[in-house]
Amino acid sequence: MPETAWKHENCEFTGSAIGFRIAAKLDEVLSPFQKIEIFETTDWGNLMLIDGAVMLTGRDNFLYHEMMAHPALFTHPDPRRVVIIGGGDCGTLREVLRHPGVQQVVQCDIDEQVTRMAEKWFPELCESNADPRAQLLFDDGIAYMAGCAPGSVDIVIVDSTDPVGPAEGLFNQAFYASCFRALRADGILVQQSESPLALLDLIRKMRAEMGKAGFAAFATLPFPQPCYPTGWWSCTLARKAGGFDFREDDARGKRFATRYYSAEIHRGALTLPPFVAAALG
Amino acid sequence: MPETAWKHENCEFTGSAIGFRIAAKLDEVLSPFQKIEIFETTDWGNLMLIDGAVMLTGRDNFLYHEMMAHPALFTHPDPRRVVIIGGGDCGTLREVLRHPGVQQVVQCDIDEQVTRMAEKWFPELCESNADPRAQLLFDDGIAYMAGCAPGSVDIVIVDSTDPVGPAEGLFNQAFYASCFRALRADGILVQQSESPLALLDLIRKMRAEMGKAGFAAFATLPFPQPCYPTGWWSCTLARKAGGFDFREDDARGKRFATRYYSAEIHRGALTLPPFVAAALG
Repeated sequence: MPETAWKHENCEFTGSAIGFRIAAKLDEVLSPFQKIEIFETTDWGNLMLIDGAVMLTGRDNFLYHEMMAHPALFTHPDPRRVVIIGGGDCGTLREVLRHPGVQQVVQCDIDEQVTRMAEKWFPELCESNADPRAQLLFDDGIAYMAGCAPGSVDIVIVDSTDPVGPAEGLFNQAFYASCFRALRADGILVQQSESPLALLDLIRKMRAEMGKAGFAAFATLPFPQPCYPTGWWSCTLARKAGGFDFREDDARGKRFATRYYSAEIHRGALTLPPFVAAALG
Repeated sequence: MPETAWKHENCEFTGSAIGFRIAAKLDEVLSPFQKIEIFETTDWGNLMLIDGAVMLTGRDNFLYHEMMAHPALFTHPDPRRVVIIGGGDCGTLREVLRHPGVQQVVQCDIDEQVTRMAEKWFPELCESNADPRAQLLFDDGIAYMAGCAPGSVDIVIVDSTDPVGPAEGLFNQAFYASCFRALRADGILVQQSESPLALLDLIRKMRAEMGKAGFAAFATLPFPQPCYPTGWWSCTLARKAGGFDFREDDARGKRFATRYYSAEIHRGALTLPPFVAAALG
């Protein structure tokens, strides 16, 4: 590889591309599920690709991980038991464990190699893996959710790849019905929901499938995420009942630092731009 | 060109790339200042490149143009005379002219060919060019601002390319001093200010130069913009005195449609994420 080359992800379903300037290739592993590659970039820290799709960079993953964790955790009145489906890079786990009231987090990613590569190349994301409250499973998240005791979970976080390949089964009614059953009455499901600019159809379909599984209320929160197609991403929260007012005073007075998330950012993200609101009805 | 190809902009100063899937090349002109190319994309409408850098697509330019115009116009108590420096694609001009109180808008872009290409390939952006309140000049924006009568302008909008090449002189104290002099006491300068993730140093430097020219108050508002490096962009507003509370009731009750801008989006953009606020002091 030349001293500096460019690595592009041409995203077929958005018709747009994202890329980074590469200094070196650091690692590659072919797991039973996917090809995982690690590059050193010139400006974005280390970069993980799965089957050619950008998963994260050392520089901008805080945006995604903070927004996958804190809006849901500050919306639930008292989150104690959290399940993360996917999330093998452990960045979301780290954010969830910042909440002192959380008593147990089960992370279930199908591919152990994602976590092994994260431990090696993104050690800062894995700094909470030894927390006694954390349990790391390497198993099928669909089966895990189907086997959860009913009403045993406060928050399910679906931190997966795109709805193709291993993650396809995490975007349909059957999976959402398992989440619904596992959640307590005031529980929250939160899932990464792709680009609110380019993939509104997908978000609409996700919310419809969640609705068929019994969820009654939805909130899609946009946030910037340079390493994903269009640079603008979202998470979607679903509840059995109730709304998305959050513990704003707790968010404002939180005892841990965040770089993107704040009570004001959370509040702002709850009101969608007109074109997104119109598309989501 | 093959039926579908990909066009990437490798941005040297962010170390990241943006790209679109191309269906056809539509046009190219070499002006006295720069090379302007037009492509048809598969998913993003028409695409304009200047010297290889993405300027706009038909699909996502509304984000930028609305945010370059409406926050400043709803912050000023009664904007009547507006000057746009750059802005040759006429999209910002169109948004400014939606405000019925505006009596005159002078747009001064150095390169007439940008406007001619916009008229041809982005006619929707040029639909207000014949408005009797609009005056299109093709001249040096630096000289234009230097020649403006003192205290004659309510809002100056600097809608330029990056601070290299023709636009370099639009990012320094001398130019800002001309803007300061031309603005009335309650006037507002607003300038596109690049990526709040990758280019915080540049925003800091811009604000310092504006300060040296006499401006006392600054607000940097982030917004998504898929076609620019990192997909996250910003505008920076500067005032001689006073703050950035805006005419929120007027914004809420506006008689024209917007797709991204709303009173709530404006309010949300005024509170920066912690890492941006910390970097800008």
